Parts: sequence; structure tokens; C-alpha cells
Amino acid sequence: MSKKQPDLPLPAHPDVDSMLSRKFGREVANYFAGSPLNRLGFLRSDHVFLSRALRHPSTSFMLCKDLQPLVQSAENKKLAYVGYEDVKPVIGEDPYALGEKEMHEQYNSEKTVPQMIFLGIDERVKDGLDYQGKNRYIGAPYFAVDVTPRGSVKEACEKLIGKVEQGDVQFGKGRLMELEASDAAIYAEARQLLDWNARNPFCAQCGQPTMSVNGGFKRACPSTDLARKAAAPMSTTAAAPANPSERPPCATRTGVSNLSFPRTDPTVIMAVVNHAGDKILLGRQRRWPPYWYSTLAGFAEPAESIEEAVRREVYEEAGIFVGRVVIHSTQPWPYPANLMIGAVGQAVPEGETIDLGNDPELDDAKWFDFAEVRDALRVGTSGLGDAAGPEYKEGGLRLPPSTAIANQLITSVVNGFASVEAKM
Amino acid sequence: MSKKQPDLPLPAHPDVDSMLSRKFGREVANYFAGSPLNRLGFLRSDHVFLSRALRHPSTSFMLCKDLQPLVQSAENKKLAYVGYEDVKPVIGEDPYALGEKEMHEQYNSEKTVPQMIFLGIDERVKDGLDYQGKNRYIGAPYFAVDVTPRGSVKEACEKLIGKVEQGDVQFGKGRLMELEASDAAIYAEARQLLDWNARNPFCAQCGQPTMSVNGGFKRACPSTDLARKAAAPMSTTAAAPANPSERPPCATRTGVSNLSFPRTDPTVIMAVVNHAGDKILLGRQRRWPPYWYSTLAGFAEPAESIEEAVRREVYEEAGIFVGRVVIHSTQPWPYPANLMIGAVGQAVPEGETIDLGNDPELDDAKWFDFAEVRDALRVGTSGLGDAAGPEYKEGGLRLPPSTAIANQLITSVVNGFASVEAKM
Repeated sequence: MSKKQPDLPLPAHPDVDSMLSRKFGREVANYFAGSPLNRLGFLRSDHVFLSRALRHPSTSFMLCKDLQPLVQSAENKKLAYVGYEDVKPVIGEDPYALGEKEMHEQYNSEKTVPQMIFLGIDERVKDGLDYQGKNRYIGAPYFAVDVTPRGSVKEACEKLIGKVEQGDVQFGKGRLMELEASDAAIYAEARQLLDWNARNPFCAQCGQPTMSVNGGFKRACPSTDLARKAAAPMSTTAAAPANPSERPPCATRTGVSNLSFPRTDPTVIMAVVNHAGDKILLGRQRRWPPYWYSTLAGFAEPAESIEEAVRREVYEEAGIFVGRVVIHSTQPWPYPANLMIGAVGQAVPEGETIDLGNDPELDDAKWFDFAEVRDALRVGTSGLGDAAGPEYKEGGLRLPPSTAIANQLITSVVNGFASVEAKM
Repeated sequence: MSKKQPDLPLPAHPDVDSMLSRKFGREVANYFAGSPLNRLGFLRSDHVFLSRALRHPSTSFMLCKDLQPLVQSAENKKLAYVGYEDVKPVIGEDPYALGEKEMHEQYNSEKTVPQMIFLGIDERVKDGLDYQGKNRYIGAPYFAVDVTPRGSVKEACEKLIGKVEQGDVQFGKGRLMELEASDAAIYAEARQLLDWNARNPFCAQCGQPTMSVNGGFKRACPSTDLARKAAAPMSTTAAAPANPSERPPCATRTGVSNLSFPRTDPTVIMAVVNHAGDKILLGRQRRWPPYWYSTLAGFAEPAESIEEAVRREVYEEAGIFVGRVVIHSTQPWPYPANLMIGAVGQAVPEGETIDLGNDPELDDAKWFDFAEVRDALRVGTSGLGDAAGPEYKEGGLRLPPSTAIANQLITSVVNGFASVEAKM
């Protein structure tokens, strides 16, 4: 019963229709970026659009259980989808029947509402949904649905899970780094949004329960809650509120608050070269396999430029003072909500001595000759839990795989990125 | 009684001590970046350090009322600070007397705790605090204190405000874009952290009140609250909890949650050139003064690379399809919590037609000849509420000032950034 997707090649340049999903110029496109979908974010508040997209025959639903998506069993390389009739017992006939105003009025914090995300449309599908807003949009819609059994939809979720698991599909396990690139990007969007909604059931400003709106891209703090009305004692005193479902005021209702919108944490990750430009700084955490090293990384702090964040992190973790910093590329990382901003930095001559005594986060940090690193890129890369390749010899340097931006940064540096005057 | 700071020049290169605050290479350092302070983030959990820093004679306290700092009245160009004895009536003898474990045990949600931020130390001050941790750190500490009158410290705050306002200082007004660059960076850190704490008094995961720890850089969700004990009815039934101050469980206590840490929202802001490379795309919002245009901008969404976010925003707001994208520089923007990632993009030949019909956010968007933009950069820049310069003629293009990254991007583009093959 699951619905596999056809292989749709990205069209040859120039085709403006899918320009949003193409790679250009010198850009390094990292794993989890490169979604083929047009998110149509400006239509998320148009419930008529969402309602039509939901029920179109070209529409695909990604089921997620505990944030793991349904994948095709064969090699775990492709996502598997189901159709509207499959998810209807869980989500109901039309979760987008009401506009946001009516959703506020009918808000009841005790009602289970399965979390859904509108992911976008695939414009390569010419016989998909044809929607005339102010402009015309054609494509196959994609949604994600959280089917983790809970509340009043527990049984419907369990039934659906049981049904799909009879087919040649399964829910993913661990970090899904084997998915094809475009599927990985679609999943990254779904995972990060489902996770953000799950982490934010309450308003950080006022402590009251919140409600998912805008196709899963916003959480609103309603001013009323029908559950309060049901719970309110019968009262005939003058002190009873005019509207028993009314909730205390909240600042997020009277202006735009970033608390209402998905959170993405900018992080810096950097390949640092010595001043002479022939060694690269790598570090390792205690829990990693022996001989495994990678680039240093950390969260950007409030009120820092990226270059400052890079210098601070390298100083904190390794005691190295970095001068020049150039941004290399970025990687969305949906575990849970990072935007990894990759950079190349160069140490100043007086700042090359490694010192792990500031922030004792690393087990070790070392300068590696480019030659050793080139060798490791050839024979010593693998996923963190996986074995190195057949040519790897015990004791040799091990490095992250090409799906990690760390690998891309290291590769760029040993290929001369830092020595090109124009880049640094 | 306010304590003005001496002018301390940044030392000449090479001086590793303050390497963290220097600019290098081709980096464009935007306004609000470039703090002279070493944040020493790894010492924020060391309450003995914070306690010593609090009471050192070299220590400066930035007072903020409704997020506005104390500034020297003369020209609003420099921050003004007070000393420990001044703030003691508000913050108490030693708000860092307890370690985090003891703070959890003594947590009482009904107690007013004035928000404080440890901003870092100025290592140029050689006779500042001398602290031996695992390494040795010397410098003058900086803190920010929220003195907005409230709760049990209302009177102490009002008294302190009255006292400082008798001097040659005042609380800032509006957006403080006249501060000297290094003061602007220190204020940006203070403002963003105070604001984040103020927006997050409750746990978004469980809805219960949270507590500021780690020098203002973390909010914890304690497992007990002495206020519950006080409120608990006397009971002799078996159902009464063993510890009446105990709170319901929360997932943020059992693992690392990003909800506990400050939020920074990555945004993209981009100067887009046409394919021929002789025009630049600028847009305007309805509420801006007549003839005022700027670069397009918007929030990065979950699971996008920066380049994808740039393409999406330009498509949504102006209908333009962007091919090549290069990151230019970044600007912290503490209103309230943005990291502006500046980029230069280039339209593809078939995607240059402006269409405001997707996301109707802009009042207008237009392609401008470089010559017209160069002229505007010379005579038509100013702050958003300010008058243009004396040479400006009514009807001419107006642009943001050099403190805005938009101006830096526009300037780079008309100076040939997009035409340099190595950069794009």
C-alpha cells in the first residue's frame, strides 16, 4: 500500500521552474541541502490551498514515528510515502478545513491533533495540483505526518503502522546518512519541523499550551482554550470571567515574536591551517573510535559574527589563535536544528601552540601534515559507527565521510583552498 | 557616580592576548561585531570565578532599563558604567554565592532575581582581575544588569535609576546606531542575552517557570520549586507527594536541549545583480520613507543551506531566480536575536523578470543601474528615521547607512564584487 516515488531527474539548465533546487557556480552543496521541493511558504497561511493540496491524487505523505521516516526496505536509500486515504484515519477528513481565526476560536488544549508539516510541491510533476493563487502553482504536494501513537489517535496510528509494515518498507533507524541526497533534504525539513513542534508544546513567554498553525511552521498562543471552560466550576459569583475559556494575556499575541517560529541554531565548523599553510588542526572527542579526528565545531553565540565565533571556538577548544577566516559552505543538520556554517581559518604565527586547558571539551587536538590527511581521505573515512575501508591500516588517521561538511572542509584545505589568495 | 571607561586602543599586531577581537584579511567587520571582550564562556559555570569577577575593583556594570543601556550624555557615542557598590542594593551581596546544584535546590519561582549577564573580560586591562583556573586569565570584567523596576527589587531599581540620572548619563533611546563600534558590540551581547532571558521565563517543553544560570547564558528547568511547598495544602492523605516542592518531570532535565540555550535566528540578506552584472535588485517596504530602497532579506528556514535560503527569499519576494550565490560577511543584529548572513547573488538570464505576486511583502522591487546606486551611496544614505545628507536631491534614491550590512553589500557590488571571477 505504500506509494513509491518515480525517479524524476532534475531538468537541464535553463528551466526556471526548478531553479530553486539547482546548484551553481563554486557552491559546495552539502548533504541535507538541495531539496527538489518549492516550499511555497507564502501559501502556508492559505488553508484553502493546504486543504486542496492534502487531497490531491498526486500528494505524498511521509509518515514519521519517533522522528523516523518510512523508508524503502531494499537499501534504506529512498523514502517511502503513503496516500491521503491511508492517513485519513489518523489526521481526519480535513485538518485544514478552518482558517487560523476559527482554529483559535475552537482551540482545545485537550484535543489530540497529529502534527503535520506542509513540505512543499515538486514542480517537476506537471500533472500535479494546479492551484491559482495570485500566481499559478503546479506540482505534486508533500506532507509529513507524525504517527507516533498517542492520545486519542493512538489506535489509528498503531493500525496504520501495522498496515504499512506489512509491505516492503520500514521506519528508519539511527541517523539516516544513506538516503539519496534529494530524499535526505526532504527528510531534513520534515524532521526539523516535527522535532521543533514536539519540543515546544508550551509558550516560553507565558507557560500556556500552544497550537500548530501555518502548515506546521508556526506555533500560536491562543487567547482562549475550550478545555478551561469544561474545567471551570459552575459559579454564580460576580468574580467569574465573562468568558470562562479565556486565558491570561501573553506578549506573543500582541506583536511578532520569534518564539512563534521554528528555531535554527547557527553553528560554526572550521578547518584551521597553520600559518605556513601545510598542516591542519583536527581534534577528537573521548567517545569517538580510536584514531578518529575531525574539524573543531561549536555553537555561534549571540552577537558574534561568524568569523568571531570561529576564532572564539578554536581558542576555547584548542588554544589556537586564528587570523583570517573565510566561509566555505553551509550544511543543514536536522539533529535537532543546526545550520552548520563551514569555514576555513588560518592561525597567526604566534598562536599555533595547542592548549586544551581553556574549555576541556576535546580529548585531543593535533596538527596533521596534509600528506597524512590526504591518505586518510583516501582510505580512512567512514560513518562514525562504521568500519573504515578495506585499505585502512590500524593506527592510521580516520576521518568523517563525505556526507559530513567536516570532510568537505578538510578536502578543500588539502586541495589548496587556504593557499589561493583570492579565497582567503 | 557613573564610571566612564578609558579609551583603550586595540594593541598593534602581533599580540595574541587580544587576537580574538582583531580583524584580518579580507573580512568585512560589520557594526555590532568586533567586541573587545574575551567572553570566557567556559568559566560561566564556575561560580567562584563569577563571584570574584563581580566584586573586583576593575569591574564595570552596564545598567539596562527596558533593554536600553546607560550612555554618556554628551553625544550618545559611549556606554557609561557603574561599579559594584552601586548595583549591590539591586543584585544583593553576591548573586553567585551558590553553585548550580545549590541554586536548583533553593529555587523559588516567586523570588525576584534581577537578570545579570557576564559579558567577558577586557584583557587590555593588565591590572584587572587575575584569575587562576586551569589557565590564568587577567582582565577587567564586564556585567550587564537589568534594572527595570519589578517585583521585590522595584524600589532598589528606582532608587539606583534616580541616582545615576543625576549625573551626565542617560538611558539610550531607540536603536543605538551612534555608539562607537566596540561599545556597540558589547551592548549587542548584553541586549540579546537580556532579551532572550526576558522572553523565556517558562519552559517551552513543560510550561513551568525556568531559572537563569551560567552567567545568564543558560535557563534551567529545576525539578523542585520552594514556592510549591509554600502553596501546598496541609494534607495527611497517602496521595501527598514525598517532597511537596517537587515539580512534574521535564525532558530538558534528562538530556541537552537547545531550549536551555540562547536563541539566534539566522537571516539572509542579499545584494542581487542581473546576469549581465550591471544592475542591482533593491526593494522597499511600504512603511519606509519615499525613494528609500534596500537589499532583500528574510529568515533562513529549517533545513536550508544559506544559498538555498537566498534563492528562496529572492524568488518569494521579487520573483527573481538566482543562480550563483557567494557569502560576503555577517552582522549580529540584536533586535532581537538575528545573525544576518550577507550574500551576493546573480540572477540567471531567464529569471530576471520582477514579480511581486508570490509573497506580497514588498511595496516595490526594481533593478537599479550601478551609476545611480553609486550616486545614492555618496549623497543619499542615512538612518531610517533621519534626513539624507545636504547634497541629496528630492526624488533621488535613498539607501541605508554604512552601519547596515545592506550598505556594505551594495557598496561591494557596485565596486565589482560580483564581477571578480574568484569571488563568484
